[in-house]
Amino acid sequence: MPFTNGADGSVTMRDVARKARVSLASVSRVLSKHPDVSEAMQRRVLAAVKSLDFAPDFLAQSLRRGVTHTIGFLIGDISNPVYADVIRGAEDFARSKGYGMMLTNSEADPHLDAEHLRLFLQRRVDGIIVSTVESGSAEIARELLEQVVPYVVVDRDAPQGARVSTVFGDHASGTRAATAHLIGHGHESISLISGYEHLKPARERIRGFREAFEAAGLKPPEELIRRGSLTPEFGREETFRLLNQADRPSAIIAGNNRVLAGVVEGVHQTDFQVGVDLALVGYDNLDLARLYRPPISVVVRDQYRMGQIACELLIERLSDPEAPARSVTLPTHFVPRASSDFVWKGRRKRS
Amino acid sequence: MPFTNGADGSVTMRDVARKARVSLASVSRVLSKHPDVSEAMQRRVLAAVKSLDFAPDFLAQSLRRGVTHTIGFLIGDISNPVYADVIRGAEDFARSKGYGMMLTNSEADPHLDAEHLRLFLQRRVDGIIVSTVESGSAEIARELLEQVVPYVVVDRDAPQGARVSTVFGDHASGTRAATAHLIGHGHESISLISGYEHLKPARERIRGFREAFEAAGLKPPEELIRRGSLTPEFGREETFRLLNQADRPSAIIAGNNRVLAGVVEGVHQTDFQVGVDLALVGYDNLDLARLYRPPISVVVRDQYRMGQIACELLIERLSDPEAPARSVTLPTHFVPRASSDFVWKGRRKRS
Repeated sequence: MPFTNGADGSVTMRDVARKARVSLASVSRVLSKHPDVSEAMQRRVLAAVKSLDFAPDFLAQSLRRGVTHTIGFLIGDISNPVYADVIRGAEDFARSKGYGMMLTNSEADPHLDAEHLRLFLQRRVDGIIVSTVESGSAEIARELLEQVVPYVVVDRDAPQGARVSTVFGDHASGTRAATAHLIGHGHESISLISGYEHLKPARERIRGFREAFEAAGLKPPEELIRRGSLTPEFGREETFRLLNQADRPSAIIAGNNRVLAGVVEGVHQTDFQVGVDLALVGYDNLDLARLYRPPISVVVRDQYRMGQIACELLIERLSDPEAPARSVTLPTHFVPRASSDFVWKGRRKRS
Repeated sequence: MPFTNGADGSVTMRDVARKARVSLASVSRVLSKHPDVSEAMQRRVLAAVKSLDFAPDFLAQSLRRGVTHTIGFLIGDISNPVYADVIRGAEDFARSKGYGMMLTNSEADPHLDAEHLRLFLQRRVDGIIVSTVESGSAEIARELLEQVVPYVVVDRDAPQGARVSTVFGDHASGTRAATAHLIGHGHESISLISGYEHLKPARERIRGFREAFEAAGLKPPEELIRRGSLTPEFGREETFRLLNQADRPSAIIAGNNRVLAGVVEGVHQTDFQVGVDLALVGYDNLDLARLYRPPISVVVRDQYRMGQIACELLIERLSDPEAPARSVTLPTHFVPRASSDFVWKGRRKRS
């Protein structure tokens, strides 16, 4: 096997071997902490390493060993603050197992996802956590399926036929609970402003929404399910439109935290008051929801735990390439607050 | 120079050379897109590459070339949403120049900063953008000064004696404008809840705060400058303490967006009302400040531009290792809103 050859004049393992008067293989065994090395040999080699001020080339080493103890985390959109907790959970777990973690940010652009995947593979990560914004992007799926490194998918469908572990939030149950809470407080005309159904979380939210109506013996208001990209702009525009129509809804569920910011902005453009003549539910326990007056009810999930589990599933595969793919689903919970926790008695007369 | 030797049975450049019946150097020239290659040679080598299904080893290539076209971005704390824009600015610029970008997150832990720096160097990035939470951390500075790759520091002091480019926000001017606005609206008892002065932005904010008082012929209320770690907890506790003291301030400036969330929470624990009997100013134009009722006045800076410039300064150094270090300062602006834009007429009588 080739070692760094010191063409640039740097000290090489060969120099260390010469200095210690041992074989190159012995130096390699000592530096790679091989168990089958005598204490005397270890002292001899380390003395030579020290006297020559030899810095092992970790990247060259990992090329030889084929293992880098580095995990790549493909972030779909760093602008969404919920990612921060997923990343922290994954990093803490990785670190506890001796892995470093590098991130890339794709700004919700599937082409960048593919580019970043290539970047990770070129920089030789051992495995990848994939948390893209779009799923089913043909380009990403193809890239992934062609890869040799194990990967884990967070809150998105895995490409069909791929042996890949996944961690999901159970978005249906939280949305079902939120919808049931609104129905129980007298609402029938409830709007869900959420994402397109090719994204698993959006699909699951719509399912939970419908199930709550059906459980109450009511027909789900299909025309009040609004689908779009999960941006503040979409939330603002749909809210303004909904609240200005004759048969306006009395409650809105904003399908994620970015949409919620837009919905709040849209409400401010009308003369409706959250918690008085409009019930509001959002997602994720961020500053806006917690500190808005009235505080905004939310469906929450444990993002930190989600990151931990994603990393655990990945390292499971790294430790045992034959391990079967696993899928873990984490619960979501509804936290009622003043924005929706009032009894709806029908519309006030408005000018 | 050593090539990958295919010890794992993979196809190597040597195999390609044999198949194409050309020299190894010719294969290398074709694959590295050397200008001095005939079309015939190119066709011949690429045909062999195709027939052998040879995948060039990019990492081995970059080891030989010494250039990876990859930039590392050391993020101090990904939980602070303002980083997202800095990162986006840096990434967009990097991409426009043909560079990929990898990130690490240190969760405000200087030891992790040092570890991540090592990770980047092992993974062979060409240069690093450093946006740590703590500056002056001896460990980081030592790591940096020992390094051979160029780096740029964002909004922190560069280590003494280092030839390093920096990009700063002019935090003094925005804070001076905010403080002058409060003084102009009748406040004299103004509290600044901010960070420790070893951090440049905190130091600059305190300077701007004092200058506004001095410009108005007033003595800066030193006892109302509160220093601590820039967390919501610190903001909440200081606010609660300040508002419960006999000589309570009539206005609060929250030293960053995390502190602002805590200050708002602290105010909610009292019966004071923002925009009525307490003026409030925060930093950064995030959802909470924009959408709170009343909207909260803020000092803003162009984070995206800051990221762009950081990356520009870095690539400048990568293109010309002899280029002198440069320092760029970006303005900050005060945006008055209803939380502070009312005339203070002295304390109401309170129970």
